Amino acid sequence: MRRKGLAIMAAQTVASTSTSAPASTSVDLGPAAALSCRECGQRFELGPVFACVECFGPLEVAYDLPSGSPEELRKQIEAGPANIWRYAPLLPVPADVADKPNLNPGWTKLVKADNLARELGVTGGLFIKDDSGNPTHSFKDRVVAQALEAARAFGFTTLSCSSTGNLAGAVGAAAARAGFRSCVFIPHDLEQGKVVMAAVYGGELVGIEGNYDDVNRFCSELIGDPLGEGWGFVNVNLRPYYAEGSKTLAYEICEQLGWRLPDQLVVPIASGSQLTKIDKGLQELIKLGLVEDKPYKIFGAQAEGCSPVSTAFKAGHDVVRPQKPNTIAKSLAIGNPADGPYVLDIARRTGGAVEDVNDEQVVDAIKLLARTEGIFAETAGGVTVGVTKKLIEAGLLDPALTTVVLNTGDGLKTLDAVAETSQATAVIRPSLDAFRDAGLAAH
Amino acid sequence: MRRKGLAIMAAQTVASTSTSAPASTSVDLGPAAALSCRECGQRFELGPVFACVECFGPLEVAYDLPSGSPEELRKQIEAGPANIWRYAPLLPVPADVADKPNLNPGWTKLVKADNLARELGVTGGLFIKDDSGNPTHSFKDRVVAQALEAARAFGFTTLSCSSTGNLAGAVGAAAARAGFRSCVFIPHDLEQGKVVMAAVYGGELVGIEGNYDDVNRFCSELIGDPLGEGWGFVNVNLRPYYAEGSKTLAYEICEQLGWRLPDQLVVPIASGSQLTKIDKGLQELIKLGLVEDKPYKIFGAQAEGCSPVSTAFKAGHDVVRPQKPNTIAKSLAIGNPADGPYVLDIARRTGGAVEDVNDEQVVDAIKLLARTEGIFAETAGGVTVGVTKKLIEAGLLDPALTTVVLNTGDGLKTLDAVAETSQATAVIRPSLDAFRDAGLAAH
Repeated sequence: MRRKGLAIMAAQTVASTSTSAPASTSVDLGPAAALSCRECGQRFELGPVFACVECFGPLEVAYDLPSGSPEELRKQIEAGPANIWRYAPLLPVPADVADKPNLNPGWTKLVKADNLARELGVTGGLFIKDDSGNPTHSFKDRVVAQALEAARAFGFTTLSCSSTGNLAGAVGAAAARAGFRSCVFIPHDLEQGKVVMAAVYGGELVGIEGNYDDVNRFCSELIGDPLGEGWGFVNVNLRPYYAEGSKTLAYEICEQLGWRLPDQLVVPIASGSQLTKIDKGLQELIKLGLVEDKPYKIFGAQAEGCSPVSTAFKAGHDVVRPQKPNTIAKSLAIGNPADGPYVLDIARRTGGAVEDVNDEQVVDAIKLLARTEGIFAETAGGVTVGVTKKLIEAGLLDPALTTVVLNTGDGLKTLDAVAETSQATAVIRPSLDAFRDAGLAAH
Repeated sequence: MRRKGLAIMAAQTVASTSTSAPASTSVDLGPAAALSCRECGQRFELGPVFACVECFGPLEVAYDLPSGSPEELRKQIEAGPANIWRYAPLLPVPADVADKPNLNPGWTKLVKADNLARELGVTGGLFIKDDSGNPTHSFKDRVVAQALEAARAFGFTTLSCSSTGNLAGAVGAAAARAGFRSCVFIPHDLEQGKVVMAAVYGGELVGIEGNYDDVNRFCSELIGDPLGEGWGFVNVNLRPYYAEGSKTLAYEICEQLGWRLPDQLVVPIASGSQLTKIDKGLQELIKLGLVEDKPYKIFGAQAEGCSPVSTAFKAGHDVVRPQKPNTIAKSLAIGNPADGPYVLDIARRTGGAVEDVNDEQVVDAIKLLARTEGIFAETAGGVTVGVTKKLIEAGLLDPALTTVVLNTGDGLKTLDAVAETSQATAVIRPSLDAFRDAGLAAH
């Protein structure tokens, strides 16, 4: 079934593998020229396909990048809107994308975290890229926005996904704003809060009797069946476009640093896609001359309860052995990360590393970030901050260099993680005597 | 006790009531020149005081506003940071405020809500000013940021407040980032989620055995006592500065409309302070020549279960009779709103109105906004959207005019309000047959 679906969806290979291969004439996705297989290099016309018909490798977007001078391009970007569309010339979207109804995510704060830097002993400058500032409060808005434009270009009218959390809300919200139908698939026994967050946007929300793997299997079946005709699954048949949204994190970080590359980045790993696309974005900026060509190190962060990439990195393996997830960092709990091997490549090539922290360290790191910078991060943010601390202590991350740590989501979405240890410091009668006795007076 | 406190804190009247009265020489709060009594006009030196020693009227900040040309001032503002500090020349903060550690709130999205406009029959342009994009996801970050600067100027080292929700998180986060101690007072039986949100920033969080009124009474006692020395209560002794933060909503709305006044604004009413300061901000923009001097109407929005201002408006009264709140819109549930009479003045002077909606209408409006624009609002946003609908139906709000509706907080903070009616549309087995039988296929 899966093979048949792929064959249907990836019939049209383009004639040449040269970078000047013409884009499909039927769709306008700006500088996106073709899809290209990350394994064998085979090129395909732009379309709702995600795997190579030759070798089943993953497809990614290949570009005809702008040819103007870096000064001109910087000026053009800086004059653009305060969202990801300032980078439209580098994304698989039409030039007029900012005029179409969408959630306009991105351009989130890069917070100089001097208090946290002091606690961790970082002297070279420490920054938090805080993606909780996105419309639905996670980085998923960036990737869904790309998938939406691809869905428009391919004539889809329904936006869909399988999800256990952040993605469901991002898809529901984006579809509502764009006037798309949405249909989101979740395990039937998902926590009530997450169900509400996904359902409030008014799309179809379908509980599947089974676990997340069952949901995914079902979605793959649906894509290959006429029942799913006209459906854009953001993280399946639109995945090559969707994934490109993470490049904008790299662009924003560099522009916000004054068009400079950071020396070190700490990025969470779920499927690993985000980390690989951040690297792709940095490479593009170098190629375009928008930043200086100098080394940078990318560090990957996992939770101990779902650390297949970290385990492979430490063992010196090239392949990633799947693991059954068991961690409070549920947005990172992908036991068989598709981009794991690419992450290993990048960490090794750039001189970075992959590390993991346990759930207690995740909670401690969430509270450390909140206490020092007033940023309340999701568990995934606890993972990156916790791993940063561990890497410094192990001497793997250089505290004298400029370091950017990603927070990809909002603490309001994972309140349970910190509930037990975040309580009132005292409960007193409403009297000055009781207040004095509790030792809370000015000091 | 209260009177003594006031006397201690408001001893220094300035010699003259003219607008050229010199600012206190000891503090630098930029263009803030003095405090002025809103009732009797008496002026006081800038200080941590909030009530007039002459008549007990509320004090507000009086300014020496910039004297340059509108073009110069617009250019200066537009070159400023993408947060409230672009308006530093119009706020009670020092000129270098953007360099001090704070959460840099504001410059939230003004969303053109075409889908919602179609549903409501608005043809003149409908916009949502979406303050859920602030750092702790409510407009409170704007006001707390002003209080923080005043606290710095007056040499306070502890930031404090009484709160039942949004304010606690905003104060905790701002204090953490600024390196202040924080001490937040809440009713001891507050919902667990809100306790966690307030406690995670690591400040003191004190549960008071009693209701919110008991908490407030206790805080007033503490301010007049040596036990509270060095404490800046953002919504009590720093209230005149704190309240000015809401002016930035007016500034941003006009700048985001291209330096134009909207024709109509729909603003929620809790204490009424926000509405009065939005009016003050609009008046300042007119006075400075930054926008054209033309009429605008301000509409106030309340929940039926806490509608003392709406009741007074409809009855044609000048005074507001307190009411015991009973509504799901808890962030607006102030039964005795201090600025109620000023709100009545403004609604009547501008040709606006004050209206209320019941809890069911609040829920419907939250879901309407989510379904049409992908914005998940707090109950307060349901109140403003619901009131907008009701005002249009009643012929009080003109659908042919440009209208801005405020959403002041985030739906993630009031999930309970929509939980019952936001559930999965279907639960099925993971099979194509089950999917077909559920009638969910592409259509």
